[in-house]
Amino acid sequence: NEIPHNEKLLSLKYESLDYDNSENQLFLEEERRINHAAFRTVEIKRWVICAMIGILTGLVACFIDIVVENLAGLKYRVVKDNIDKFTAKGGLSFSLLLWATLNASVVMVGSLIVAFIEPVAAGSGIPQIKCYLNGVKIPHVVRLKTLVIKVCGVILSVVGGLAVGKEGPMIHSGSVIAAGISQGRSTSLKRDFKIFEYFRRDTEKRDFVSAGAAAGVSAAFGAPVGLLTLGCISLQFFASMISTFTLNSVLSVYHGNAWDLSSPGLINFGRFDSEVGTGIPHGEGLDTALRSFGDINLSIISICRYIHRPCLQVVEAMLVAAVTATVGFVMIYCSRDCQPIQGSSVAYPLQLFCADGEYNSMATAFFNTPEKSVVNLFHDPPGSYNPMTLGMFTLMYFFLACWTYGLTVSAGVFIPSLLIGAAWGRLFGISLSYLTKGSIWADPGKYALMGAAAQLGGIVRMTLSLTVIMMEATGNVTYGFPIMLVLMTAKIVGDYFVEGLYDMHIQLQSVPFLHWEAPVTSHSLTAREVMSTPVTCLRRIERVGTVVDILSDTSSNHNGFPVVESNPDTTQVAGLRGLILRSQLIVLLKHKVFVERANLSLVQRRLKLKDFRDAYPRFPPIQSIHVSQDERECMIDLSEFMNPSPYTVPQVTSWQGVFKLFRALGLRHLVVVDNRNEVVGMVTRKDLARYRLGKEGLEELSLAQT
Amino acid sequence: NEIPHNEKLLSLKYESLDYDNSENQLFLEEERRINHAAFRTVEIKRWVICAMIGILTGLVACFIDIVVENLAGLKYRVVKDNIDKFTAKGGLSFSLLLWATLNASVVMVGSLIVAFIEPVAAGSGIPQIKCYLNGVKIPHVVRLKTLVIKVCGVILSVVGGLAVGKEGPMIHSGSVIAAGISQGRSTSLKRDFKIFEYFRRDTEKRDFVSAGAAAGVSAAFGAPVGLLTLGCISLQFFASMISTFTLNSVLSVYHGNAWDLSSPGLINFGRFDSEVGTGIPHGEGLDTALRSFGDINLSIISICRYIHRPCLQVVEAMLVAAVTATVGFVMIYCSRDCQPIQGSSVAYPLQLFCADGEYNSMATAFFNTPEKSVVNLFHDPPGSYNPMTLGMFTLMYFFLACWTYGLTVSAGVFIPSLLIGAAWGRLFGISLSYLTKGSIWADPGKYALMGAAAQLGGIVRMTLSLTVIMMEATGNVTYGFPIMLVLMTAKIVGDYFVEGLYDMHIQLQSVPFLHWEAPVTSHSLTAREVMSTPVTCLRRIERVGTVVDILSDTSSNHNGFPVVESNPDTTQVAGLRGLILRSQLIVLLKHKVFVERANLSLVQRRLKLKDFRDAYPRFPPIQSIHVSQDERECMIDLSEFMNPSPYTVPQVTSWQGVFKLFRALGLRHLVVVDNRNEVVGMVTRKDLARYRLGKEGLEELSLAQT
Repeated sequence: NEIPHNEKLLSLKYESLDYDNSENQLFLEEERRINHAAFRTVEIKRWVICAMIGILTGLVACFIDIVVENLAGLKYRVVKDNIDKFTAKGGLSFSLLLWATLNASVVMVGSLIVAFIEPVAAGSGIPQIKCYLNGVKIPHVVRLKTLVIKVCGVILSVVGGLAVGKEGPMIHSGSVIAAGISQGRSTSLKRDFKIFEYFRRDTEKRDFVSAGAAAGVSAAFGAPVGLLTLGCISLQFFASMISTFTLNSVLSVYHGNAWDLSSPGLINFGRFDSEVGTGIPHGEGLDTALRSFGDINLSIISICRYIHRPCLQVVEAMLVAAVTATVGFVMIYCSRDCQPIQGSSVAYPLQLFCADGEYNSMATAFFNTPEKSVVNLFHDPPGSYNPMTLGMFTLMYFFLACWTYGLTVSAGVFIPSLLIGAAWGRLFGISLSYLTKGSIWADPGKYALMGAAAQLGGIVRMTLSLTVIMMEATGNVTYGFPIMLVLMTAKIVGDYFVEGLYDMHIQLQSVPFLHWEAPVTSHSLTAREVMSTPVTCLRRIERVGTVVDILSDTSSNHNGFPVVESNPDTTQVAGLRGLILRSQLIVLLKHKVFVERANLSLVQRRLKLKDFRDAYPRFPPIQSIHVSQDERECMIDLSEFMNPSPYTVPQVTSWQGVFKLFRALGLRHLVVVDNRNEVVGMVTRKDLARYRLGKEGLEELSLAQT
Repeated sequence: NEIPHNEKLLSLKYESLDYDNSENQLFLEEERRINHAAFRTVEIKRWVICAMIGILTGLVACFIDIVVENLAGLKYRVVKDNIDKFTAKGGLSFSLLLWATLNASVVMVGSLIVAFIEPVAAGSGIPQIKCYLNGVKIPHVVRLKTLVIKVCGVILSVVGGLAVGKEGPMIHSGSVIAAGISQGRSTSLKRDFKIFEYFRRDTEKRDFVSAGAAAGVSAAFGAPVGLLTLGCISLQFFASMISTFTLNSVLSVYHGNAWDLSSPGLINFGRFDSEVGTGIPHGEGLDTALRSFGDINLSIISICRYIHRPCLQVVEAMLVAAVTATVGFVMIYCSRDCQPIQGSSVAYPLQLFCADGEYNSMATAFFNTPEKSVVNLFHDPPGSYNPMTLGMFTLMYFFLACWTYGLTVSAGVFIPSLLIGAAWGRLFGISLSYLTKGSIWADPGKYALMGAAAQLGGIVRMTLSLTVIMMEATGNVTYGFPIMLVLMTAKIVGDYFVEGLYDMHIQLQSVPFLHWEAPVTSHSLTAREVMSTPVTCLRRIERVGTVVDILSDTSSNHNGFPVVESNPDTTQVAGLRGLILRSQLIVLLKHKVFVERANLSLVQRRLKLKDFRDAYPRFPPIQSIHVSQDERECMIDLSEFMNPSPYTVPQVTSWQGVFKLFRALGLRHLVVVDNRNEVVGMVTRKDLARYRLGKEGLEELSLAQT
């Protein structure tokens, strides 16, 4: 006897989200009652929420920026004072010790809170948000606690001098803010403001989370259009405009020139003039190939190393911080690359082993925030950098970034990638200028920009969004085309070797992620082959005991059940009438919406839509609901609570058709019926995510089972 | 006895496009046979086509720009020489006559070709492309002839001095180019290159047409990101990048500075510095209200006037051209607003009634191309314009633009709108500066920008795309937020009075256009109420005579037929097995894929997918297919040619659900089935477009019946 397969274990780890609009009868009736004015109120609320998301995300970005600036400034001053004081006396090792200790202790705090309080706040959070928007919920990903830990963690990692950026995590932060505001309550704070109750369901929440992600991107890069490429709409765009505007205003006021409005994002690439050297598109092929080869190492190194014990994770983070400080120090000591202090815009010039009136440029590279280093690499006039220094710096920073990625700290990979890319690109530009004896097509700043684009593109493998983001960050449409070429080359070369970093991350965690396009070689499959069968169906009027037993069956852990015509006489599967979700059944059981078998006609609805909404999104487990033996013999009428028109397909539907339906409508369950409308199977996210295109054609993935 | 309603007359005028991927069995089998390498070839072809679309669109834009510049320069020189020669001698009326005649004759040619050769080339073509992408094909809209007429028409209208722009029509031109290239053949030229045959179906063609539209927008405004807001993807973005790059390169070379790359679009707003006055968001409420009120007049005036006889249309166009010239001349004569010639960047300064070393600024406004006037209004320093001159100009240009819109010439409404808006905005800024005694928040150029945004937004009612386009055209993210606020206000105020110009246009032509969102008050409807019923069904093995009779029935003109299980004994509707299109049936009849009733088992397929593709998109009418009396008695087996898994919904499905399915999947037919999978009705585009939200709730539209 086969085990029913309504929804193959998505895994206990992840939860599938329901972006399908098919709500139950109660919801449809509410929608029907809603009049024009009420609808307009809902619309206005949507805009208000998006404005709030934008403002809060912008403020969080400001907060991070200002705190980092101050703390880092403080740290630099302490270290600089110390160096100035002790260098003469030969106490250089003491300075090194101080620097390493300071960094290590700051990073320790950052790592401790992440490892012990909220491990999901580690990394940039972009893969997690990608999964959320795709329909898979990783536990705790949009909780308030995660946000707090994330923000503190990012500040501490950046201040701790790790080779990380604060831009990526803004996307996660924006999403959490959006998830919180849109629900009008916080389960962590146990506070329900009784507002925005209409939005308490997966579809609505998803829209707001994507608005939050857009606001985050826009706060990070000053690129409000960037996330449009992910299929966002007016609301999301509105949120991102507000977010970048808020950030811009607050930072302008903070920096004392209120109407200047010149910091649209946490990182600004500065303005490029439109003169493009001819060499850029030509030179990039090789450049990119090299770069992408680098990425592969990066990815492998960073992904393969997983330390699972929290204590060890903290120790490792501290170690990396200390090593980073030491490497920096040793390189400063060894390089002795002195530049005149006049005319340079360095915030913390260190004299260190240089003559008076000069500063150590390697020290600058390590003491600057990475954001400033990137901008300097883009804009400094030719001749500002010693190729040796630059080469050494690139190499060391590359290895440090590789090691850092994967640490249990909150940190982004955007800025380190940009920095490494910019450094390689500039180096490439300088070499080219040596080779061609300085002909016109060798402005190293432009090469730095292209290198940064290539490096970032090789790592995250997004062409469209990155082009827009980079184009917006440079504020010049002219660079769009070369940037896009570079990104496409990076993606093609990179894809030939390994997957992108985020996709690797997602796949390593065995998330049933649905890519936008169905794998090509799946054309020969039809719904019949893909579907799970047999399926546990419920009858329209079902025994309570049966429902409880089905829900309690931990071996299946199903989430959706087709409802068929009640036909108690035969065991044969009958015509499909609707679909009901586990969460809805649990609410029904909890409120004991039963009726005795004898008085079937007396069935009265005692449940309101509000009862379902209040339970969202943390429905109690079946074990917590007590049903007595008498109650087990009662009947439960599902007809008013089920979705009366679930999406169905016949068995001959092609896999492409099923996939398209799933992606276009954000389905969770798709019922497969035969010619007489009888249920023969069910397709769920897992059935689709199981197949992917491997080296040897279609292969079945092993998705998380634990 | 009711008439079957498979697809209510969409009208003989328009054709419904099939963006639903549900192809017939042959196609599915081909897809199944396709291997990885073949799939990759198709992918590469897609990118190649998009690159070609981008390059060609860019070249067409260059061609228009260069020809207009030269012809207009020639015309200006002739008129100026004439004025210079005769003004002294008092022959001013002769100059006026020459000017008016020149303009009228140029416009006459432009109007003649549009009115007599291809009327669909009139206007900007944006509503038509909007309809095409929505799924309604207006005849001839993507033909080569249309493109040629459009390009010539635009050049002639602009050179003829009408109050029109050349930017809007670029979108239409790009779309035609895309439609042509992607099919690898031209039916107008009767040339088939036998390439890109894979793309000969509505879905694929739509994707390319949207890429062409994106390339057009990007060539016009240098805004490659703009059309992303319409849900476009990588391919479209690629096409628009290429297009803007091509235009930029060619124009840079043409203007003699090859690596300057400073003209990303036909119109560039020039660079704004980021200092934003505080007043802008405050002042805009009133400003916008005024402006939108203006729009209403504009829309009403321009829409209500329709002259249908081609000869009269040509005469009217000539009249408008002559009046435009006369008005310009009279205003130049009356205003006598003289400005010093030093330090001004005017291309054709006219001394006209001014002292030596001065020029007539009103003459400049009329002699400049509108693009340059817009940019001047944005960037000229405060004090450049006399408020009286500006006010007069605005008023006159406004009325001329109103009259011009709706003429039978190819022309866009973007630039006139921007110009009027910029002029009003600047005027508003100047007044504000008078009122506030010139405090800091009154740089009139910024107000001109906001005014232009508001005016354009009020007319076309697009918030998202326009914000992005304007933001990209200004090259400054900082202005995004105020622009978006202004556009939203303009939309809200405007929507309170009338619909947008394009929507009006679409509605006046009774196109069954599906808006993105379902009307709100339609919640109480279900599929049962919306669907057309009864439906003409075909049996799986059907008599040829029956098929011919059904197709020949001009009273119904159906396009899709559910195929049900063959059950010759009963007339009762049986279980749904598939769906077949009129076009497919016609190909079957044309190739006589029949079998005699006696030898049903001998059915052999003699048709290939190629036969369907070759017939696309101009399938012969049923009248042209001769079927003999003997053949009428043969049988036709539809099972291999029908789509075996059409989308279906139960009768209780909410209208929202039906609408969502339609929009998300681009459906043409949706079969409504009962609990036993028997066909009870069919929902088509027309059933959905019938309902719209009027002042008094849901109203039924009268869609084109002719």
